Amino acid sequence: MIGVDWGTSNFRAFRLGAEGAILDRRGSPLGILHVPGGRFAETLSAEIGDWLRAGEDRVLLCGMVGSRQGWQEAPYVPCPAGIAELARAVTAVPFTGARVRLVTGISTLDPQGVPDVIRGEETKIVGVPAALGKAGLVCLPGTHSKWVSLSGGRIARFATHMTGEVFGVLREHSILGRMMRQGPPDWVAFDCGLARAAEPGGWLHHLFGVRTLGLTGELGEAAASSYLSGLLIGHEVRAALPAGALVHLLGAPALTVPYARAIAALGGVVRCEDEDAAARGLAAIGAVINWDAGD
Amino acid sequence: MIGVDWGTSNFRAFRLGAEGAILDRRGSPLGILHVPGGRFAETLSAEIGDWLRAGEDRVLLCGMVGSRQGWQEAPYVPCPAGIAELARAVTAVPFTGARVRLVTGISTLDPQGVPDVIRGEETKIVGVPAALGKAGLVCLPGTHSKWVSLSGGRIARFATHMTGEVFGVLREHSILGRMMRQGPPDWVAFDCGLARAAEPGGWLHHLFGVRTLGLTGELGEAAASSYLSGLLIGHEVRAALPAGALVHLLGAPALTVPYARAIAALGGVVRCEDEDAAARGLAAIGAVINWDAGD
Repeated sequence: MIGVDWGTSNFRAFRLGAEGAILDRRGSPLGILHVPGGRFAETLSAEIGDWLRAGEDRVLLCGMVGSRQGWQEAPYVPCPAGIAELARAVTAVPFTGARVRLVTGISTLDPQGVPDVIRGEETKIVGVPAALGKAGLVCLPGTHSKWVSLSGGRIARFATHMTGEVFGVLREHSILGRMMRQGPPDWVAFDCGLARAAEPGGWLHHLFGVRTLGLTGELGEAAASSYLSGLLIGHEVRAALPAGALVHLLGAPALTVPYARAIAALGGVVRCEDEDAAARGLAAIGAVINWDAGD
Repeated sequence: MIGVDWGTSNFRAFRLGAEGAILDRRGSPLGILHVPGGRFAETLSAEIGDWLRAGEDRVLLCGMVGSRQGWQEAPYVPCPAGIAELARAVTAVPFTGARVRLVTGISTLDPQGVPDVIRGEETKIVGVPAALGKAGLVCLPGTHSKWVSLSGGRIARFATHMTGEVFGVLREHSILGRMMRQGPPDWVAFDCGLARAAEPGGWLHHLFGVRTLGLTGELGEAAASSYLSGLLIGHEVRAALPAGALVHLLGAPALTVPYARAIAALGGVVRCEDEDAAARGLAAIGAVINWDAGD
């Protein structure tokens, strides 16, 4: 079969063997925001047409391609959800020349009853066998970071933190960004921000400190961005990390490195997972789909 | 004398009598960001030239006009600071036809040693006699909200919260803004946001809830802005309000009304002060300045 992780910014396709082995892979920047005029079928044909012509006829998609802005909106499956629930809930997408299915997102309610949703990460998570094996906790840092709790091989619940987006809007659009210069990570400043997140005074006061530390020269322009990053990630991890928990971290190194540092500093234990979790999750779901239903 | 509250967006001038009575007042949108080409002296002459020709020759300025982006940068006076300290620290500004002085800003360190600064609000605060009389707490909500503690007639310390600016950048530049429609305040939604701020999960998770409550239809587009406002103000007030404290609230009703609601909901007692505090503070400082020094 063919698995496709089709997100907002990127298209990543895997040709998968019977046991989930990755036989071939390719990627392009044709994320759903860059697919012109809703031409998803044409884009898919252009990207993996040769694999289809070579005999593949099962295509499983995950990610924002199943959102309202994507090819076809797929509803959310409520937690708890594992491979079986995701496989049962796939949505068929009309396409000539192959059976195309979409993995739906999942939804949960936090302990206070506020809803939360995931679309795309659920497939990566079921591709982390070490987390699925027993009760586990997976963190996927990003624009909207996800902290996902597993139990009995299924996703039990999760919480989204808007950390990456808040960092971006503050750097690009607030007074804090005016005193920042882009540069390599400054880990000393990052750790200062991390430590600041543990202090009283409130996060809205902590944020203003990024400005005042700059005004007084205690924080240089090159360090301010790392300090803000440490401050925000510190607030996130302090809210999300159960004491001493083992956290499976999943993502690109630019994100997992600072998160691993923050989780370790706050008493957690980190295990970094490789980035082929999406392919493994697509293979695992694809293996139990009833491909004959739904067209 | 003449007192001028010259901020980022507005110019407000008061002609003050011997006892600080407001004899005349005027205002214009010529805040420092709107003064063309650094022509502060010309702008001042144009705005209050008739008062000067009528015999006034003492002009006291406060606000962002004393910042690096203003007419002339005035240093910060460290806390504790009251009327006497502010009067001693005024900066002379060269001007033909009157003695022009600038009230400097003030600085403090929070209990963790992080610096904080105020420029403009210090003058309003010393214009709130009820707060100055004994130990008091003044809140000035805004882009950068100030919580100011007074003791023995002086400003003892303060903390800035970036609440207004965070609200603005999230509404204008984040995914949350896409599901908001401008409208009159929705107090039910505001109270829901306020209550949410008391719940666990962390503020970065609370923010994402604005989106998910919208996705599930629990929060309408017209209500989302008020919910976010309540959430952020709730986080600020919870961090800044000592249990059961009396808070002197100073600002425009569009800000003091929601803050009064939040403070009362969180167990504080509110007293709203009138908006002429800047004029009273300028008069109080001006009365003890040595106008003959410094030119």
